[in-house]
Amino acid sequence: MTSIGFIGLGIMGRPMARNLIAAGFDLTVHNRSRAAVDELAREGAEVAGSPAAVAGSSDVVITMLPDSPDVESVLLGPAGVLAQANPGSLVIDMSTISPDVTRSLGLEAQSRGVRFLDAPVSGGEAGARAGTLSIMVGGSPEDVDDARPVLSALGSTIARVGPVGAGQTVKAANQVLVAGTIALVSEAIMLLRANGIDTSEAFRVLDGGLAGSAVLRTKAEAMARGDYSPGFRVDLHRKDLRIALDSARRLGVVTPVSSVVDQLLLAVSAAGKGDLDHGALLTVIEGLSSSTA
Amino acid sequence: MTSIGFIGLGIMGRPMARNLIAAGFDLTVHNRSRAAVDELAREGAEVAGSPAAVAGSSDVVITMLPDSPDVESVLLGPAGVLAQANPGSLVIDMSTISPDVTRSLGLEAQSRGVRFLDAPVSGGEAGARAGTLSIMVGGSPEDVDDARPVLSALGSTIARVGPVGAGQTVKAANQVLVAGTIALVSEAIMLLRANGIDTSEAFRVLDGGLAGSAVLRTKAEAMARGDYSPGFRVDLHRKDLRIALDSARRLGVVTPVSSVVDQLLLAVSAAGKGDLDHGALLTVIEGLSSSTA
Repeated sequence: MTSIGFIGLGIMGRPMARNLIAAGFDLTVHNRSRAAVDELAREGAEVAGSPAAVAGSSDVVITMLPDSPDVESVLLGPAGVLAQANPGSLVIDMSTISPDVTRSLGLEAQSRGVRFLDAPVSGGEAGARAGTLSIMVGGSPEDVDDARPVLSALGSTIARVGPVGAGQTVKAANQVLVAGTIALVSEAIMLLRANGIDTSEAFRVLDGGLAGSAVLRTKAEAMARGDYSPGFRVDLHRKDLRIALDSARRLGVVTPVSSVVDQLLLAVSAAGKGDLDHGALLTVIEGLSSSTA
Repeated sequence: MTSIGFIGLGIMGRPMARNLIAAGFDLTVHNRSRAAVDELAREGAEVAGSPAAVAGSSDVVITMLPDSPDVESVLLGPAGVLAQANPGSLVIDMSTISPDVTRSLGLEAQSRGVRFLDAPVSGGEAGARAGTLSIMVGGSPEDVDDARPVLSALGSTIARVGPVGAGQTVKAANQVLVAGTIALVSEAIMLLRANGIDTSEAFRVLDGGLAGSAVLRTKAEAMARGDYSPGFRVDLHRKDLRIALDSARRLGVVTPVSSVVDQLLLAVSAAGKGDLDHGALLTVIEGLSSSTA
């Protein structure tokens, strides 16, 4: 059976690692803070003292980390994954990071005889727990095929969208769509409220037609009642949106709508709410609008 | 069996009228242009020479017309529905028009002993054909209950969202969400293309996560291959969006994102493409962006 190393046991990583254990894989974990490691150890995972040690005992190493510098240091550092990865082994970075950094990491891995995929996810903590994530994979067709049995334990939609880096680009597009839809739903909620409409019934009927979306179905109710417990934090979403808008700007893609959305997310942070769920974008529209609306 | 009158046999009205015949209702139709009337007559509908004549022979009168002035003239004109509607009969306006005009029409109907509902729809021509429209209904709970057997032949989601006018307000919110999502999908398509991504696979994996939407599922493919045959015309969507943004402005609801979307739809019309499907918003983002993107 494939032995898997898992590095990064945060809100997303922890339930994903659990699903791999449940699927019968031998799992070795590493994480900066100890509590999550102890938890996974109790559930049957081996524990390694460094990313390099994880790599030494694994056929497949998965990383699930906050940002580009974290992935760079875990892969390239002196006690990093590539320092001790077995030739022919497969590194799958499931973090959401820059497509450019991703492509460099892919080349660096290749130069050491290690295979590399980027495989960022959508579906949030709920999708991570349920094993129903959407996984957008960049890499060679052969490497993606080899990864499928592992990824199938984590997600229900798995698509190869292009070479290394393509997964991150599609994730960037994902974050454009999600942030924008949250902004649109925020404006719609305010319009409904100001007209005295029952928002719950409205969400139900709106979701049945062309206005339907996963945001409307899974987030609008919590937003309308002011529940902004994360979930996915505003500041992380801002980081992801920057990746998307930087790429768009560099390639000459004009993004009038997403640029306004980006400003609204900035306003959420500026109001000291960057640690709330991204649904808190609604609070900016509320703050701008008439208090009787 | 309830006898139904149907006025307005356009792209939406025609398949809706057909579904009422298929459900076994006695149907009397009226339409300005003759071709659609002849078609329905061949399928078993009675034909009436005026809206008033339709009303005289019906328990329920449905109107499905382009804009507020059309509904006003069909209901209030000298040979209009209210001139000859039976006391206690039910008028259901399924057009998308102004909530304010809707409330006046409701009061006018009431003053003549006629019951009135606004019941605009979402789901497009495909939903109209399949009888799977989302129907957002404003009116008294009793009148809505009486209308359910009729509406059930037309839609799969039927929600009472408040008093007369509330249906149009929710439809306005619907049009905010749909136009905005088309704009977001346009920006995402350009970002994916500029990065050389296979958009079909990307749409599939994006739709599996929090970025998922009915627009992505049902319109993105056609948009990406430049197929803008309507569908729902840009100029009609602009009319609907004006209803929403006028209401928001009047009530002090600030709509930074939807206002940009409104400008982009204006740009589609300004380029002479107002008769294309609203998916043609993508052409504006294309036009603004680098030709190599």
